[in-house]
Amino acid sequence: MRVALIGAGRIGRLHGENLVREFPDVELAWVVDVVEGVAARVAQELGVARWATDYTQALADPTVQAVLVCTSTDTHAEIVQAAARAGKHVFCEKPLALDLKEIDETLAAVAQAGVILQVGFHRRFDPHVRRLKELLEQGAVGTPWLLKITSYDPAPPPLAYVRVSGGIFLDMTIHDFDMARYLLGEVTEVYACGAALVDPEIGRAGDADTAAVLLRFKTGALGVITNCRKAVYGHDQRIEVLGEKGAVFLDNPRPHMVVEASAQGYYRPPLHYFFTERYRDAYVAELRAFFDTVREGRTPLVTGWDGKAAVVLGYAAKRSWIEGRPVQLREIDPHWV
Amino acid sequence: MRVALIGAGRIGRLHGENLVREFPDVELAWVVDVVEGVAARVAQELGVARWATDYTQALADPTVQAVLVCTSTDTHAEIVQAAARAGKHVFCEKPLALDLKEIDETLAAVAQAGVILQVGFHRRFDPHVRRLKELLEQGAVGTPWLLKITSYDPAPPPLAYVRVSGGIFLDMTIHDFDMARYLLGEVTEVYACGAALVDPEIGRAGDADTAAVLLRFKTGALGVITNCRKAVYGHDQRIEVLGEKGAVFLDNPRPHMVVEASAQGYYRPPLHYFFTERYRDAYVAELRAFFDTVREGRTPLVTGWDGKAAVVLGYAAKRSWIEGRPVQLREIDPHWV
Amino acid sequence: MRVALIGAGRIGRLHGENLVREFPDVELAWVVDVVEGVAARVAQELGVARWATDYTQALADPTVQAVLVCTSTDTHAEIVQAAARAGKHVFCEKPLALDLKEIDETLAAVAQAGVILQVGFHRRFDPHVRRLKELLEQGAVGTPWLLKITSYDPAPPPLAYVRVSGGIFLDMTIHDFDMARYLLGEVTEVYACGAALVDPEIGRAGDADTAAVLLRFKTGALGVITNCRKAVYGHDQRIEVLGEKGAVFLDNPRPHMVVEASAQGYYRPPLHYFFTERYRDAYVAELRAFFDTVREGRTPLVTGWDGKAAVVLGYAAKRSWIEGRPVQLREIDPHWV
Amino acid sequence: MRVALIGAGRIGRLHGENLVREFPDVELAWVVDVVEGVAARVAQELGVARWATDYTQALADPTVQAVLVCTSTDTHAEIVQAAARAGKHVFCEKPLALDLKEIDETLAAVAQAGVILQVGFHRRFDPHVRRLKELLEQGAVGTPWLLKITSYDPAPPPLAYVRVSGGIFLDMTIHDFDMARYLLGEVTEVYACGAALVDPEIGRAGDADTAAVLLRFKTGALGVITNCRKAVYGHDQRIEVLGEKGAVFLDNPRPHMVVEASAQGYYRPPLHYFFTERYRDAYVAELRAFFDTVREGRTPLVTGWDGKAAVVLGYAAKRSWIEGRPVQLREIDPHWV
Repeated sequence: MRVALIGAGRIGRLHGENLVREFPDVELAWVVDVVEGVAARVAQELGVARWATDYTQALADPTVQAVLVCTSTDTHAEIVQAAARAGKHVFCEKPLALDLKEIDETLAAVAQAGVILQVGFHRRFDPHVRRLKELLEQGAVGTPWLLKITSYDPAPPPLAYVRVSGGIFLDMTIHDFDMARYLLGEVTEVYACGAALVDPEIGRAGDADTAAVLLRFKTGALGVITNCRKAVYGHDQRIEVLGEKGAVFLDNPRPHMVVEASAQGYYRPPLHYFFTERYRDAYVAELRAFFDTVREGRTPLVTGWDGKAAVVLGYAAKRSWIEGRPVQLREIDPHWV
Repeated sequence: MRVALIGAGRIGRLHGENLVREFPDVELAWVVDVVEGVAARVAQELGVARWATDYTQALADPTVQAVLVCTSTDTHAEIVQAAARAGKHVFCEKPLALDLKEIDETLAAVAQAGVILQVGFHRRFDPHVRRLKELLEQGAVGTPWLLKITSYDPAPPPLAYVRVSGGIFLDMTIHDFDMARYLLGEVTEVYACGAALVDPEIGRAGDADTAAVLLRFKTGALGVITNCRKAVYGHDQRIEVLGEKGAVFLDNPRPHMVVEASAQGYYRPPLHYFFTERYRDAYVAELRAFFDTVREGRTPLVTGWDGKAAVVLGYAAKRSWIEGRPVQLREIDPHWV
Repeated sequence: MRVALIGAGRIGRLHGENLVREFPDVELAWVVDVVEGVAARVAQELGVARWATDYTQALADPTVQAVLVCTSTDTHAEIVQAAARAGKHVFCEKPLALDLKEIDETLAAVAQAGVILQVGFHRRFDPHVRRLKELLEQGAVGTPWLLKITSYDPAPPPLAYVRVSGGIFLDMTIHDFDMARYLLGEVTEVYACGAALVDPEIGRAGDADTAAVLLRFKTGALGVITNCRKAVYGHDQRIEVLGEKGAVFLDNPRPHMVVEASAQGYYRPPLHYFFTERYRDAYVAELRAFFDTVREGRTPLVTGWDGKAAVVLGYAAKRSWIEGRPVQLREIDPHWV
Repeated sequence: MRVALIGAGRIGRLHGENLVREFPDVELAWVVDVVEGVAARVAQELGVARWATDYTQALADPTVQAVLVCTSTDTHAEIVQAAARAGKHVFCEKPLALDLKEIDETLAAVAQAGVILQVGFHRRFDPHVRRLKELLEQGAVGTPWLLKITSYDPAPPPLAYVRVSGGIFLDMTIHDFDMARYLLGEVTEVYACGAALVDPEIGRAGDADTAAVLLRFKTGALGVITNCRKAVYGHDQRIEVLGEKGAVFLDNPRPHMVVEASAQGYYRPPLHYFFTERYRDAYVAELRAFFDTVREGRTPLVTGWDGKAAVVLGYAAKRSWIEGRPVQLREIDPHWV
């Protein structure tokens, strides 16, 4: 399989490196980036023969079967649609787009072209999460009643990024929305509470850096997501599900298993700093699943609909926070399940 | 010090036993219970000379300095007021009353009599909670941003009890509201979400058995409380506080420290089944604090105001749940801080 | 039951306080200590009417049923024998004596008098240890193959004490020898290795402060005890048993369950500092068991033979260390099982 | 760099797969195995052009710089010597040989040829072990006093293997001997105790399946290794070091971080089953270190001397067990440090 990488920034480069190192039977054929220097350098570093600043060059290559879209969010819809029209299978980083109409057009283009679209919710591929999911499917807790997701970042992003991110609910909570849907199914109502406690500048930019979100699932179960842009001890990512037969808890994996004891007490190291460390294996597994899905023509684990649904949840949370009331998902998407 | 126990049901008896066993310098002088057989039997078992079915007999004893009010909630206000008028210091189980006007009258009577009133929020006296509180006071997390309280019971109470309990927010969450106020200070807004998932009969009784509550503190911090009437693995009681300098986590103490390993994995025992086991030390410490407070004429750690505030929060949560919107505490109590 | 406390130093006082606080139906009738001021003061503090410097006065009191012998080790044999002849049941702190002939004479006197003798190996009464023992009896590990006991003190005792203690194997390891016998049964061979690493003065006094001891049990199982006089993080007391069906692990209970997370990592407090904190419940349970045994005329959980056996193991270890070779228990006691 | 794999059994194949997957800049040029079918099949599966049943063919290839010797132990010395004479750098699985004279000849041949020899003690490369080592080097425990290594396998090897393995001390404990030397330096005395408890057939074959070994280090510190061929809950591999300033503990990493709670208690999964799972990363890191060492002409982390020293310790333990006495390392190797 020959693949084009479109967008070679931090996350694009990470996917490119994983592809080259872990998938000897997949060839990275193109590196595309709007910044010429970036495209050329990353192509060279990854040993890729062709690079371009214009993604249409890669799409025009008939030997390319699939593309990895890792550009800035505002270009996702256009590129995914173009790729679909060119008959390429698409892996697209989250979010698909920040405009729901654009998302719908994109999903329509993908459907029409009959190509595979997998959206980049990498956490579903984390081996710990998969084990949790398996246990739920095996009935370890019986009927789930209450889901809790703790999801903190180690430090806030730059203000410039915050301003174009769509806000905490569309940029950060979106991963937790996807996780919630993955684990307990469809959500019908959202109530979101936010505050700018980490950095007042984030508040002045109209955004929150700390948030708590209540979910009602279609099954009647409740969910709680807590987010904070800053946990100095690392990327704190925990999940728990309580149900009639008990509970399952996903605790944070640790960088190592050494404990120190001194007169001051017992010490363990901080958590993995951020997502590239914490979800290293998940990023590889995500690509593997995409390549396998393309090869076998299966439905991906994260579909275009999943990509849209998390955005719908993000808008619902945002509206809830702004209007100070619970929001029905149907208010955002009249066709919501 | 001579003390009268008024109400000798489950919790009254527990206090009576603790008093007799742990406080050689405090004498349990009376056991009062409206059920004659209960009063007589508990008095005998605890080696107490006098018992009565009418609490005024105990209040008329001039050698009695303090009373422990452990009767059913609907009688608290009347008994506390009578005790205050009789010049007795009062320890009263939570909630002070379910009627806010009655609570105000009770607080007024106590203030006028100049006696001490301590309300039975035992968790504040738990040694683990005290350590958490100390750490917060010492600045372990810096400014607190996010409080999370997990509080599950092992099994729901009988439906008959549910029907007169005032509902989950006034009966169960009330402890967590007190804990939230104790740890992070005053709350200004509540949003509550509930569902009857454990037992549909609870739903038909107009109550919820599973709940999630969002709090806004006066400081701007956010709080989340999750409750469930049933966690088959025991009385799950966890607290965490995230702030600018880090976090503190209170995990469940375990009945013992033995771990078994077999081919199926590693096993630890379930948690302490319920509050009498989990908070055994807290109940003793609560009494000790009350007796010390009486002796030294200090302000108790849990004041009458604390007793009222938790009820105000309970009503706010109840209204929020029923009306499906966030509720300001001032809507319930116009004089709220 | 009326009881005399003989020896009111640190451990004697601890037993006296536990008796007074926890056993309303047992009366502490005498406090005896060779130091007049100590006897008088402890008697006063514990509210005991009679005190003496001569233990025979307490033994002469016909209302006294039982004595707690907490004097210095060199006086144990004489006092226990006198108490037995006076028909008193005896709880005696470990070790029974450092002279095996004296121990045999003491056991003979106890047998002839038909009184109960319980020796102060408090760890057997620790609730965590009891749970471990129960699991072994229930077959949790099947046939045990390997026992490991970790037993460290927080700081070495004064050199003056070290010099009269009989050495680390008779003073410190003796508890672990008793634990080993309690959990896996009789030992047939000991190999001991020691070193003075904590304090060279301990070495110059002819003793070790760090030790490792290998045991062969009669069943063929192996055992390892490690000791150190100094672990700055507290009284580290762990046990594990591996067998055909798995393993059981007893980890240290913690002073509290609060964990702190900062940019430096996760912290838990040091362990309980020393035995009075770590085994607080065990000391009470030990007395309760003694009183129950006396009342019911049962065989105590720790018999005179157990008291002797641990000393035999101590001498075997000492000889092994000095002579640099494994020692058969029969070399120390020709009648060893 | 072009490399030949000599020996394509379980461990050889594992190295071959790691080489092909993880080191794009190292070429696996030959697969050699005495079994023709194995050599051909593994070569094909790993995409290697050349295979042979005779290792001299690979040594004759002037483009081969290094060899990985993964054959049966009895052939190591001959092949390593031949490779050295052919000027190839050598990675050799442990043990270098079971005959100390052969080891000396091999080390001499390597020294004369001036090639690099790294011996396959993979645990030194485990990231958890490296962190432990770093902490010791940074003085986390100050002067080390007591080392404890727990090292259990999940199930005993076939009896046919046991019979030619050299016995538990040379086959299994050898890894722990290397770990002990790595962490605390040279050992001067060994006392070993063994028993056949898992399988009496192992005893009839003259070997033990359960063992405890005491070490005296040159520094005066003590060490304890416990081994068992069968721990049904997985490959239990723990290390702890106590010293003047505290302790460091290396606990087992877990396959995943999900905990289940039910009415029966809390469950975690068994450990990684065996070394290929537990030390997956260590095997890759070991190869990486070897290739880096070859490239940079450095001294490897595990030298030929380390390879010999662990065997000397193995013989000392074996003799100690057979003769029932502590053995000085100088009894086995008169030139021991």
